[in-house]
Amino acid sequence: MTNFSEMLEVARTEALIGLGEGGVPVGAAIFGADGQLLSSGRNRRVQEGDPSIHGETDAFRRAGRQRSYKDLVMVTTLAPCWYCSGLVRQFGFGTVVVGESVNFAGGVEWLREAGVKVVDLASPELIEMMGGFIRDQPGIWFEDIGV
Amino acid sequence: MTNFSEMLEVARTEALIGLGEGGVPVGAAIFGADGQLLSSGRNRRVQEGDPSIHGETDAFRRAGRQRSYKDLVMVTTLAPCWYCSGLVRQFGFGTVVVGESVNFAGGVEWLREAGVKVVDLASPELIEMMGGFIRDQPGIWFEDIGV
Repeated sequence: MTNFSEMLEVARTEALIGLGEGGVPVGAAIFGADGQLLSSGRNRRVQEGDPSIHGETDAFRRAGRQRSYKDLVMVTTLAPCWYCSGLVRQFGFGTVVVGESVNFAGGVEWLREAGVKVVDLASPELIEMMGGFIRDQPGIWFEDIGV
Repeated sequence: MTNFSEMLEVARTEALIGLGEGGVPVGAAIFGADGQLLSSGRNRRVQEGDPSIHGETDAFRRAGRQRSYKDLVMVTTLAPCWYCSGLVRQFGFGTVVVGESVNFAGGVEWLREAGVKVVDLASPELIEMMGGFIRDQPGIWFEDIGV
């Protein structure tokens, strides 16, 4: 897979599964340099009562130990929060693909300033889906971002 | 427990357990406003083959869902990396106690600039212990911080 929109579909599927489970609908996936899928994951704060599982950290865990992340692509349906932006920066992901940053801008500018390539696909479907979740479940959403 | 040095002992014990397990010797603990221990954890990259488990993220997970972190104290044997500094900032921990920042400075200044109270105890024991680990196991250490 070399098309960012196709990669985002993997993350979006994870987000939709999470939504169906009653969870925060953020999904993520990690791809290798030649576009192969290494892992995918989703936020499971609600499902597992575990606040450490954001979409990005779940995909990161599921990719196992990697010696380098610079050629890998982190794809996430929603702009990464500070926690997940810190993950991207610490481990040196070269590229981050973001489904949308309208409902939450996260650390996108900070990552760009640190030299990470950030591609924002501004998906209307995801903007609507996440916006709907925040309206319907503000308590869970604000808990998830520590507000 | 209201004494930061006593709190650090809990994190240090976790780090020493990790060292004995052949892991990266970083431990952490989270305390409530009145000094009660909420959770502790340690880096388990090696033990569980899981790169997402840093000391701080392990303690965070083990504390379960919390509505607010502003009155909580995150104690860690080593200055938090970007990943763990991002965690602290996103969830709004009011205070971070750091065992040492000589072997790794992490995001300590960034957290201070963001208004987090950072107390660096500059423990000679921890400086020596972590320095020894980095000398003995540079491959694991640099993998752990994505270098």
